[in-house]
Amino acid sequence: MIIPVGAPFSALETPCALVDLDRLEGNLAGMAAYAAREGLSLRPHIKTHKATRVAAAQLAHGAVGLTIATPAEAQVMSAVCGDLLLAYPAVGPKLGKLMALPESVRLTVSLDSARAVEELAAAAKAAGRTVRVYVELDVGMHRVGVTAWDDAIALARLVTERAPLEYAGIAFYPGHIREEPASQDAKLAALGVALRSAIDALTDAGFAPGVVSGGSTPTVWRTHEIDGVTEFRPGTYVYNDRTTAEIGACAWEDCAFSVLATVVSTSVPGQAVIDAGAKALGREPLRGADGEGWGALLDRPDVVVSRMSEEHGILDLSRTDWRPQVGDLVRVVPNHVCIVVHLNDVIYGVRGDRVETSWPVDARGRAHPAVAVEGVA
Amino acid sequence: MIIPVGAPFSALETPCALVDLDRLEGNLAGMAAYAAREGLSLRPHIKTHKATRVAAAQLAHGAVGLTIATPAEAQVMSAVCGDLLLAYPAVGPKLGKLMALPESVRLTVSLDSARAVEELAAAAKAAGRTVRVYVELDVGMHRVGVTAWDDAIALARLVTERAPLEYAGIAFYPGHIREEPASQDAKLAALGVALRSAIDALTDAGFAPGVVSGGSTPTVWRTHEIDGVTEFRPGTYVYNDRTTAEIGACAWEDCAFSVLATVVSTSVPGQAVIDAGAKALGREPLRGADGEGWGALLDRPDVVVSRMSEEHGILDLSRTDWRPQVGDLVRVVPNHVCIVVHLNDVIYGVRGDRVETSWPVDARGRAHPAVAVEGVA
Repeated sequence: MIIPVGAPFSALETPCALVDLDRLEGNLAGMAAYAAREGLSLRPHIKTHKATRVAAAQLAHGAVGLTIATPAEAQVMSAVCGDLLLAYPAVGPKLGKLMALPESVRLTVSLDSARAVEELAAAAKAAGRTVRVYVELDVGMHRVGVTAWDDAIALARLVTERAPLEYAGIAFYPGHIREEPASQDAKLAALGVALRSAIDALTDAGFAPGVVSGGSTPTVWRTHEIDGVTEFRPGTYVYNDRTTAEIGACAWEDCAFSVLATVVSTSVPGQAVIDAGAKALGREPLRGADGEGWGALLDRPDVVVSRMSEEHGILDLSRTDWRPQVGDLVRVVPNHVCIVVHLNDVIYGVRGDRVETSWPVDARGRAHPAVAVEGVA
Repeated sequence: MIIPVGAPFSALETPCALVDLDRLEGNLAGMAAYAAREGLSLRPHIKTHKATRVAAAQLAHGAVGLTIATPAEAQVMSAVCGDLLLAYPAVGPKLGKLMALPESVRLTVSLDSARAVEELAAAAKAAGRTVRVYVELDVGMHRVGVTAWDDAIALARLVTERAPLEYAGIAFYPGHIREEPASQDAKLAALGVALRSAIDALTDAGFAPGVVSGGSTPTVWRTHEIDGVTEFRPGTYVYNDRTTAEIGACAWEDCAFSVLATVVSTSVPGQAVIDAGAKALGREPLRGADGEGWGALLDRPDVVVSRMSEEHGILDLSRTDWRPQVGDLVRVVPNHVCIVVHLNDVIYGVRGDRVETSWPVDARGRAHPAVAVEGVA
């Protein structure tokens, strides 16, 4: 079965993922223009879309390379990009998949431990390939990254002692700044001071970072204000979501992604049930903004998904006169689009109220191999 | 690449899903024995495992058929089972996929609206296939199901007037009972009264339900106490999870499913970071039980995943002397296994500390068709 080009949404089995192509193109162009204007290298994180089709569009808009989080994403994206940053400290069997990337791919890995350096060095040496390394700094999020700049210097030194590794710079992720852009002044200033002290310490020790790679979605339009940054890795901007809009990092009209759902029950008063639950919308709360629920309707943002089961979403009708009927279609803007894309195999590209194209979420899975008797495929 | 039979866990790229085969077999046998002892028809819901391999094992243990939630699950499961209940009110394009099931499949659909009856009747008539119908009742969860028994009678009557539909019984889901089994007496008694009144009303009107299909995980071992029930549809029991254990519906030792993860960073004091975040563990809270975090370690249930990003999980080490190193493997029992299985393509079957087999989560996706110019495949 196929969906014909130009079909109405009613031809689609719900729940399914829609991307408004006009909005996607606007988002791609907007971020590319910002990067060009501010002289920042744009290395988008593909975790949001996990699709070579969108990655290729990012590269066509001037991205210097791509950022990835998993070896499977690296495998898939190597088909369209020869410059990949694994923004993740890989150890163990992950390294085998990384080293099997085409030789033409320039690979960079960010990491924060001597163990990760040693494992990466051994794998790179065995594979006979150069791997560039960013030393990851903790600038306040307290997730990964070294917290003391002496430790950053020690890691940079270790990398230089472990050819074919190459020390290429530093990376950071200011995920602790969740305020809307207009309220970020104090935290951005503190971030700039911390980052400058790290750059100076590394430079004084002979490890001046060639690249300073950082940024996050809430801060994305102020990345140029962070002293020292040369490269940024935005992900969410291609599609945006309810959180991005609520914190003011995009307008509601920039939300390109929605989940098409069907009203399947109105039997319980005060609510309508749609066929998009936690297996279609994820269960991510809004962060950095007030607001309840697991998503809001694109055309009626006052109507939210207030409760979910795995395959049921409950639309709260208590604040609206709207009374949908069984069979009606709705579009839900999820709270966190990266999680929702990860739940889909296919994206439908739409323009207006028509389906124009589709593409696979080809970097969605983890490409885990099967178990078999050795020698038997 | 393959994983050889008998490989240690260290051969696996993390994060990945493990199922302890001994525990799975114990869980399958235990529920089958309960059903046989109490004279209940066992129609397990495959939403938890989404794998024909596990479904076939359930059928081998005496299941009368399978319960499914989506048309894609129906498609896949029709390869191993000829008796499927879609416990979901299907309308719209879903019906096309349902009607394309092999003719040999006996299909039942539960629904709660005249619209769903009319659409199903039209589709069944066009396809020339009999479809059995359960009328869904709301017995207190307030999700789907009719709340007034007169409405149930009207739906049953409508079904009998819409050949080739056949009225086959009623269905309910007591998802509002989240207490541990020992604390369910009052709610179970109220449920029994409500259900009996529905059965009596339908019977008096000439629509005695041939099947009364219900039950839920928290109440599963007390299903036989619910007056009138003939069939139950447990799902989670095959794997179990942290919630099932915490509410007392299984023992911790019955948790067959875990996510294997690698410690990737210990740079921030007081925590260790693993490579299983919200894209590997979901973000489901514990329900019906106290307890924080998004999952707990199988071998150290006092260590929980306290924070997550998409690909990072933060192990809180504040209540343990254990200090893992980068590269160490851990196994996380997630809060809600059904959501986590939905994130995986492959399950590794393990016995003890060895990998014995693997199987695909072959009913995971939604089998959405691509968009193409009509006539061009």
